[in-house]
Amino acid sequence: MINFVEKAAVLIEALPYIQKFAGKTIVVKYGGNAMINEQLKAKVIQDIILMKAVGMRLVVVHGGGPEITAMLKQVGKQSTFVSGLRVTDAETMAIAEMVLVGKTNTEIVSLLNKYGAKAVGLNGKDASLIVAQKHLAKVYDGDAVKEVDIGFVGDVAQINPGILFTLLEQDYIPVIAPIGVGIGGESYNINADYVAGEIAGALAAEKLLLLTDVEGIYRDYHDKATFISTLTLTEAQAMIKQGTIDGGMIPKVEACLKALAGGARKTHIIDGRQPHSLLLEVFTDKGAGTEIVKG
Amino acid sequence: MINFVEKAAVLIEALPYIQKFAGKTIVVKYGGNAMINEQLKAKVIQDIILMKAVGMRLVVVHGGGPEITAMLKQVGKQSTFVSGLRVTDAETMAIAEMVLVGKTNTEIVSLLNKYGAKAVGLNGKDASLIVAQKHLAKVYDGDAVKEVDIGFVGDVAQINPGILFTLLEQDYIPVIAPIGVGIGGESYNINADYVAGEIAGALAAEKLLLLTDVEGIYRDYHDKATFISTLTLTEAQAMIKQGTIDGGMIPKVEACLKALAGGARKTHIIDGRQPHSLLLEVFTDKGAGTEIVKG
Amino acid sequence: MINFVEKAAVLIEALPYIQKFAGKTIVVKYGGNAMINEQLKAKVIQDIILMKAVGMRLVVVHGGGPEITAMLKQVGKQSTFVSGLRVTDAETMAIAEMVLVGKTNTEIVSLLNKYGAKAVGLNGKDASLIVAQKHLAKVYDGDAVKEVDIGFVGDVAQINPGILFTLLEQDYIPVIAPIGVGIGGESYNINADYVAGEIAGALAAEKLLLLTDVEGIYRDYHDKATFISTLTLTEAQAMIKQGTIDGGMIPKVEACLKALAGGARKTHIIDGRQPHSLLLEVFTDKGAGTEIVKG
Amino acid sequence: MINFVEKAAVLIEALPYIQKFAGKTIVVKYGGNAMINEQLKAKVIQDIILMKAVGMRLVVVHGGGPEITAMLKQVGKQSTFVSGLRVTDAETMAIAEMVLVGKTNTEIVSLLNKYGAKAVGLNGKDASLIVAQKHLAKVYDGDAVKEVDIGFVGDVAQINPGILFTLLEQDYIPVIAPIGVGIGGESYNINADYVAGEIAGALAAEKLLLLTDVEGIYRDYHDKATFISTLTLTEAQAMIKQGTIDGGMIPKVEACLKALAGGARKTHIIDGRQPHSLLLEVFTDKGAGTEIVKG
Amino acid sequence: MINFVEKAAVLIEALPYIQKFAGKTIVVKYGGNAMINEQLKAKVIQDIILMKAVGMRLVVVHGGGPEITAMLKQVGKQSTFVSGLRVTDAETMAIAEMVLVGKTNTEIVSLLNKYGAKAVGLNGKDASLIVAQKHLAKVYDGDAVKEVDIGFVGDVAQINPGILFTLLEQDYIPVIAPIGVGIGGESYNINADYVAGEIAGALAAEKLLLLTDVEGIYRDYHDKATFISTLTLTEAQAMIKQGTIDGGMIPKVEACLKALAGGARKTHIIDGRQPHSLLLEVFTDKGAGTEIVKG
Amino acid sequence: MINFVEKAAVLIEALPYIQKFAGKTIVVKYGGNAMINEQLKAKVIQDIILMKAVGMRLVVVHGGGPEITAMLKQVGKQSTFVSGLRVTDAETMAIAEMVLVGKTNTEIVSLLNKYGAKAVGLNGKDASLIVAQKHLAKVYDGDAVKEVDIGFVGDVAQINPGILFTLLEQDYIPVIAPIGVGIGGESYNINADYVAGEIAGALAAEKLLLLTDVEGIYRDYHDKATFISTLTLTEAQAMIKQGTIDGGMIPKVEACLKALAGGARKTHIIDGRQPHSLLLEVFTDKGAGTEIVKG
Repeated sequence: MINFVEKAAVLIEALPYIQKFAGKTIVVKYGGNAMINEQLKAKVIQDIILMKAVGMRLVVVHGGGPEITAMLKQVGKQSTFVSGLRVTDAETMAIAEMVLVGKTNTEIVSLLNKYGAKAVGLNGKDASLIVAQKHLAKVYDGDAVKEVDIGFVGDVAQINPGILFTLLEQDYIPVIAPIGVGIGGESYNINADYVAGEIAGALAAEKLLLLTDVEGIYRDYHDKATFISTLTLTEAQAMIKQGTIDGGMIPKVEACLKALAGGARKTHIIDGRQPHSLLLEVFTDKGAGTEIVKG
Repeated sequence: MINFVEKAAVLIEALPYIQKFAGKTIVVKYGGNAMINEQLKAKVIQDIILMKAVGMRLVVVHGGGPEITAMLKQVGKQSTFVSGLRVTDAETMAIAEMVLVGKTNTEIVSLLNKYGAKAVGLNGKDASLIVAQKHLAKVYDGDAVKEVDIGFVGDVAQINPGILFTLLEQDYIPVIAPIGVGIGGESYNINADYVAGEIAGALAAEKLLLLTDVEGIYRDYHDKATFISTLTLTEAQAMIKQGTIDGGMIPKVEACLKALAGGARKTHIIDGRQPHSLLLEVFTDKGAGTEIVKG
Repeated sequence: MINFVEKAAVLIEALPYIQKFAGKTIVVKYGGNAMINEQLKAKVIQDIILMKAVGMRLVVVHGGGPEITAMLKQVGKQSTFVSGLRVTDAETMAIAEMVLVGKTNTEIVSLLNKYGAKAVGLNGKDASLIVAQKHLAKVYDGDAVKEVDIGFVGDVAQINPGILFTLLEQDYIPVIAPIGVGIGGESYNINADYVAGEIAGALAAEKLLLLTDVEGIYRDYHDKATFISTLTLTEAQAMIKQGTIDGGMIPKVEACLKALAGGARKTHIIDGRQPHSLLLEVFTDKGAGTEIVKG
Repeated sequence: MINFVEKAAVLIEALPYIQKFAGKTIVVKYGGNAMINEQLKAKVIQDIILMKAVGMRLVVVHGGGPEITAMLKQVGKQSTFVSGLRVTDAETMAIAEMVLVGKTNTEIVSLLNKYGAKAVGLNGKDASLIVAQKHLAKVYDGDAVKEVDIGFVGDVAQINPGILFTLLEQDYIPVIAPIGVGIGGESYNINADYVAGEIAGALAAEKLLLLTDVEGIYRDYHDKATFISTLTLTEAQAMIKQGTIDGGMIPKVEACLKALAGGARKTHIIDGRQPHSLLLEVFTDKGAGTEIVKG
Repeated sequence: MINFVEKAAVLIEALPYIQKFAGKTIVVKYGGNAMINEQLKAKVIQDIILMKAVGMRLVVVHGGGPEITAMLKQVGKQSTFVSGLRVTDAETMAIAEMVLVGKTNTEIVSLLNKYGAKAVGLNGKDASLIVAQKHLAKVYDGDAVKEVDIGFVGDVAQINPGILFTLLEQDYIPVIAPIGVGIGGESYNINADYVAGEIAGALAAEKLLLLTDVEGIYRDYHDKATFISTLTLTEAQAMIKQGTIDGGMIPKVEACLKALAGGARKTHIIDGRQPHSLLLEVFTDKGAGTEIVKG
Repeated sequence: MINFVEKAAVLIEALPYIQKFAGKTIVVKYGGNAMINEQLKAKVIQDIILMKAVGMRLVVVHGGGPEITAMLKQVGKQSTFVSGLRVTDAETMAIAEMVLVGKTNTEIVSLLNKYGAKAVGLNGKDASLIVAQKHLAKVYDGDAVKEVDIGFVGDVAQINPGILFTLLEQDYIPVIAPIGVGIGGESYNINADYVAGEIAGALAAEKLLLLTDVEGIYRDYHDKATFISTLTLTEAQAMIKQGTIDGGMIPKVEACLKALAGGARKTHIIDGRQPHSLLLEVFTDKGAGTEIVKG
């Protein structure tokens, strides 16, 4: 049992961080395990609301989780993959959009509001927030590279952040589903990490916090001792080139690079499996996971 | 071919209406045929954008159309009905929400933006816009009335219009899917006419325009000559009691009554099958359909 | 007879222009036939109010018409002319000012207000809007040029646009009589085209629309086929030098050049004898008359 | 010669009055001798600018002086009178308007600006400031009273003070010519005292200062000892009824009554022949002339 | 040692209180032991800054502590007392003011700023914040009561809270020394509890928190079991009348009554000897000490 | 006796100065004889309030006068001096702060408010207005210079003018005691001339007015005929180097140089022994004392 004087000490310990981040914009990429495990979920929601309550401006970008796959299965839709990306025909896109916007997003919004926030769900179509262009998959055939059309998979072409400023100014928490809109009004599925990075850049956010299912970045991930606390943009780019950063970590790191390029101050790859890892990063000197900064 | 002087005359003819409604709030309930027929759809979208462009504050509430039924069929979900209302279990609710929020709503938003508006999709969970409570279906057994739980079908318990004011102030067009949120964060499906009526009331709208698939209200609908242009609230209530207004027209008229009770100035039941019927109502003296006013 | 669907189509056709010019400043130089012919007058007034009603910021500068001459005649005042400019002694100036400010201006203001605008009459003395300096007439004697004092005829020395911003911000239409004020508080008569050009420049207007009694500019005005739709500033200057543009067209074109130099985006010499030529220019792609643009 | 310490003492003496009237609205009716005599004129202008410079909100309403008569004579126009009022046909009205708006008003505006104010000339047509209705002259035939149409002579039907608030808010001095506008846009000549009274009422002015050519009101004007410093509204009304106040003083007193009825706090009939009588009233306890107050 | 998950839990536990009091005004009366003991002092300062940092509007009123007595002793000034109140001649008053304003107040301001707040010291003379009138001491002689002049001891006559609104609006923490100003500009020493109560009333504060050197109010202070958590205004008044509340507790309770009468919502008598008692009251349901509320 | 027309002339004479300085910031260093002599004091207060009343933004910085010395004597505290500067131990500092903040400052504030201003007392601790660093006294030993620690005597390290902008915006007169605050929250006594200079610079003041006990600067102070009206910054620096400006005049001139370097427009060394010397400087062309300007 923690007594009151100890509790007060905890609150006072948080004071310098509250002062430091008052009025600053924090973009949280919410995904992975923390979105599936009910207990972790509750803690992420609480962390976000607490950061908002003490004066930060919060923006949440979420991914899709396994629900899209479940829905596709339920309607009997088979998927094929090219270079690890799902070929997304119109029907698949429609289902992905329904799930992301009409299920995942509304659930997060509803949970945040239940705990006292004023959250508003958005997707890239709202006020043309995320303008997308078609992403072509790269297929390697020996040394040759071929670009293959895999349907409605998109890249961020432009962020129109006006609606975010309107909402943040009035103390709302925007919660964004990673759907982009094409020139003709058509939908594109975009990697949520990239969306979060671009949004953080466009808002010149103080921090981008990417919740992942790993502890952070290692020089050699077989050796826990090689854990990296801070990485510069230049180092990170080099490590991607050398292949030290590879696989699923690449889009995470690239999202950080996009954020920094756009004007964000700091980016963090955080272990979402650890309870309250957002608070750990924001309210302690120790921080959590690996941070990537300009330089 | 219309020559330019005639065109100019048409624009000038619209001038007094533009002046009259500048800065006024117009709530459009978008549904029925005008939401299915592609040509009508384009015209409704244009009408809404034109009204916005000349200075009105537009809010759109849409219904679901046949897409929910199609999706339920696609996932092999059977529905049962009580007193004409679909029994809505959790799975049915989830599908209705996905379709309304993740498909119908995003399509309307995307169309409006394509034509130059700044539309933002909302549902009742966003900033707790529409707080709902369970609707119990009335089953008549001889003279006795029994109330039956039919699941996640809701009534409007409260409108929190703050987010609408925030968006209207910044020239956005809010587009609202008729999903309500319960105390515990759960979703409810609500009749879109009622939602539109309550929203119009909460905003003290200048007009509620309900797009329907009929010409308006008749004293005797077998006799076209009995068409009613204007009806007072009191008359409308009497006609419901007498059974002159019945069937599918009852929720439309009740939506108008809710709007007027809440503070809207005028309500209109309009034939959405007629092209540009919104403009006809707003930009001419003749008007369109049946209007219900206080009194 | 035009039916409603055709009317709606006309309104919808105007939509992109309404969107394009919303919030933009349009300076109209009102003069010539359109100020004398009662039917044309009514149409110009309606056009101006319509443009205002759909969201543009309108400023009107008017000339004097034949009323000054009539008044001078009525009081038995003879005029002499030097190089086509009326020698303006103190008494002539006083009469010109009375007519322009106390008759022409108040009539236009009154007409605009009658149709629902909020117009406010101004002249160069109000808040020192137009500071003037004496204009010396050039008299050519063989190759020699002599400058002759012809009294209270002025050039624009400075525009103080503060009062215009104050009025436009509050949705008024400023209507400006072309009287300038000298350092000592004395009045100067200034060519209204020049005033309109300088005002358009000082406001960085989107458009200057000069209503004239010709169709526009021709390369050879004997040959209708040489009509010019668009002219760059450089071309226009060359054409004046070459004498292709001459006579009464010179001040019109120079007014356009002043506007562009000051920061206006586009200028248009329009045929005011054609009904609704302002709308034709602003609400169609075809445009009206000759436009002069930067370049 | 006054030395500096004495000068400083004068400034300090004004301090409580400056503090008392900061931000308060003062309406000055400018007319009579003070408008003709060049030396008095300069002093009135200086007084107005000083009051503005130390923080009061100034509005000037002026009359016509002898210039209308001079102009009518110049154009050979004869006037007839009914009950002391000039019969005002359309031509007479046009000349009156030209002189008041295009000469008297512009001169006052120009003078004020020359001394460093930001004055803007207005008349009743500007933003429909003064809406007028026809004034019928009363002709007494024994005990019978007949109402006679004498043309474009008007009474104030309504003041629309919006444009005054807009200008005062931005530190302009509105200078108003007493022309009213009828429903159809036609002009009316209105007694400037009444206009000043109605304007003072509509602005809930702190003071209405009427510059006249008398010292104020006497109980018996043959006896200087019966001079009245303060009069209540009730007393003034009684004195008009009894005939103690008569002739040219009646419209002055009625103007004061209109001002008080409309919401002005105090009204003052001041001797405009005395230099700096405005300052005397506003910056000393002694005051000047006769004040009429509520009660 | 408390681990991070426990720390996060403490922060999350505070969330509902942070949300509840965001933007609310809290007046803290700082005095007694908490102002002398260096460790307690640091904690009070931290508590105040934390409350400010999470969005409350803080106002601090402080008393004098033993420093006035020390200073009087240092300058060799003897004090006499009437009914427990120090007779305050001009010299004593000057010393009290110097100590309160020039020592106690500046020290608190400096400490708050050192920890990151923006504190501004005030006393009753600043913008005439606290207007005072002479307090007459009551001397009982048998049944007779005599009022005795004891010099510059004052009661609050009026609070002019304008300067507080100006400072709170810009996120400053006003720190107020309990000096009042008389009509003639002279100083008065006022009981700090009363000043805090009047300030809380004038600001319609959410809470007045009085730091004292007792645990709160007891029905019988010999019996710890009779501790009172909540008391209504009516009950408190009765207890003073009955003598259950007496001695030094009377001014504390009267300060609460003044606050509630003025419009404060809740008042709390708190044990300042307990570390972080302010946080205990504001961030837990348990609360601290005795609260007095309307009723 | 001055009659009213003469008085009016005095007011009118002030008009151009009132117009010129409206909205401009004037920093007054209040000290010397004008702070001791009761009659001079009243006049300075009146001058300040008059300047404020006619629209200037006033800031007052005051020195200590002989009151600190008196208080030190009263508590039996001896002072030693190094290079003319008082060695200021903690106890001396505490007494200086008490007197400056708790006596001198509150008296000036109270006087200003009594005459109708809204004054607010400040010292360097309020919102960290004046951040100080230790000043080391220079001791010359032959050619060698030694720096000696003389305690809590400070130099201005930084001005944080935010609180001044907040107060000036709301029409308050800030009155500043020359106490600085060190990094650790400790107090420093700073020369009031320097404080005034730095404040004037930080506010980019229109004028710094230093009230002194001399007439101004002479090229040779034995010869009244060598009085200097205007001096450039460069000339002043040269004169200090040459020793023409020496002794007590050096800090005055250095204060002016700091002000000009920081962005003030003009600085004035004025004879505070002359009644109304502030008005003389601000309201006449003649000015008072010596002005130092950029160049």
